[in-house]
Amino acid sequence: MRRTALLGACALLAGCATTPAPQAPPPPPMQHSNPPQFVSPPVPAGMQYLYGSAEASALTRGVWHDLVTYVAAKVKHRPADSVVLAQGATLSDPRYVSCGDKPFAAVFDADETVLLNYGFESWQAKGGKFSPEIWSQWERTGMADVEPTPGAVAALNQLRAMGVTVVFNTNRSAANAAYTEQALDHAGLGPAKHGDTLFLQGDDATGGHKDGRRATIAARYCVLAMGGDQLGDISDLFNAVSNVAQRRAAVATPAIDANWGAGWFLFPNPVYGPQIKGGMDDVFPRDKRWNPPAEEK
Amino acid sequence: MRRTALLGACALLAGCATTPAPQAPPPPPMQHSNPPQFVSPPVPAGMQYLYGSAEASALTRGVWHDLVTYVAAKVKHRPADSVVLAQGATLSDPRYVSCGDKPFAAVFDADETVLLNYGFESWQAKGGKFSPEIWSQWERTGMADVEPTPGAVAALNQLRAMGVTVVFNTNRSAANAAYTEQALDHAGLGPAKHGDTLFLQGDDATGGHKDGRRATIAARYCVLAMGGDQLGDISDLFNAVSNVAQRRAAVATPAIDANWGAGWFLFPNPVYGPQIKGGMDDVFPRDKRWNPPAEEK
Repeated sequence: MRRTALLGACALLAGCATTPAPQAPPPPPMQHSNPPQFVSPPVPAGMQYLYGSAEASALTRGVWHDLVTYVAAKVKHRPADSVVLAQGATLSDPRYVSCGDKPFAAVFDADETVLLNYGFESWQAKGGKFSPEIWSQWERTGMADVEPTPGAVAALNQLRAMGVTVVFNTNRSAANAAYTEQALDHAGLGPAKHGDTLFLQGDDATGGHKDGRRATIAARYCVLAMGGDQLGDISDLFNAVSNVAQRRAAVATPAIDANWGAGWFLFPNPVYGPQIKGGMDDVFPRDKRWNPPAEEK
Repeated sequence: MRRTALLGACALLAGCATTPAPQAPPPPPMQHSNPPQFVSPPVPAGMQYLYGSAEASALTRGVWHDLVTYVAAKVKHRPADSVVLAQGATLSDPRYVSCGDKPFAAVFDADETVLLNYGFESWQAKGGKFSPEIWSQWERTGMADVEPTPGAVAALNQLRAMGVTVVFNTNRSAANAAYTEQALDHAGLGPAKHGDTLFLQGDDATGGHKDGRRATIAARYCVLAMGGDQLGDISDLFNAVSNVAQRRAAVATPAIDANWGAGWFLFPNPVYGPQIKGGMDDVFPRDKRWNPPAEEK
């Protein structure tokens, strides 16, 4: 019954392009004594995880806690270098902007890093199709329909209490700066002031690239930590690697690996972005494929 | 063209039940000069993220690094308590098993915590339907088709080098113990010895519940850290909360929140498990819904 109804909805929707949702390998430990009474519209697994689950909340809280612990140690012993890569650095030869005696800062992306876009994603869950125009409308009208990521408000407050300036570097539009300041304030994450503690797409001529804005920030501050949901929040160099397997390998080299959880912090986002990419051959190496023995004839 | 082909595949597949994959809010910073030349079968977004993305790898590496840093500090200053909840503890009154002078341990789930099940999930990505029987076949024949989670091998080696025993507590079956020991060894995560450093479903009469096994482990060891992809890897108490919003709230109370990233460590899994649950009303609070103003008439 349910399957048929969903197939119908699926066939009607324009972008329907996913395979069946996988089921849990280990038997779930929960015991439901009653069957669910109401079946609301299906929500993609990645959204269930990110916007609804206790697990994503616990994970995110842990990242914020460890980020604060990491920064606190650096505030006590000023490092020689920012965690921002210097101009001319490469992933195989990472070098960093020096700190000098610049004031401390931590730099964060906005969307799905400090903010969860409940309003916009609820509309996408119901079949809304992303376009730059609709997203711009969201920036200008959705300021009350966001939530902070779990643990973000406490973490940013703790950073500021240590004397660390919180700077946002996001690809939201400079034209909508006042609205984004408002959204961050509404979520309890502010203050954010455009050109001071808020850097936006359109601030320079490099579009969605963030390295230019990061260089501006690192010229003013000793950046102790960066956080984001995408590698472009750390360095544009990662996004120059378009092959899925090569991109995954690029974060694993010793000099890069050492930064994860130690200056560079990633937050979960299985919903959108360059991390949601790849067909079977990209995601599942051929030498790790498996079929049940009974099906292998 | 591509959309039509995928719609066809979608209509043919039995469990097709998802809404359209959402697209990225911020314009992707990557610039592709060439269109993709080959379209391989679609992979669910959560699998693209977990098994393929650099972002999930970087996040996972960060969690492992911070776990090792946390444990190293505790090894230097022995804590009074394990991070395992004591019998009779509740989420509003969490109390912990005491450490005494027991040897140190860290306790981890196996699947999607230290192991990534590439073989099994590749089969699910192609439409394979989970059943306990097929999963048992996977335990017995898939030992070479797993990979360690990014950063796990180095982290477990560092823990052992500090004198911390690595213990696995998983819902794989006790009947397949020898195969799971082999899978962990093959991934470079061993040694794992059933009854000693490997605890399995069937070791006691409580099925998929892990608290009994945790009590056994905490009776022998001072447990400095626990890690898993599901809250059941931390305490069965969380899984007694079945309402999605209440479960998410349960990890946020001050006494519980303080443990995330500090004794209790979550790894990302947007693919399966009790975290993949909830319809629109569960995942997206009604007061955070949004529609583009143009559509609001």
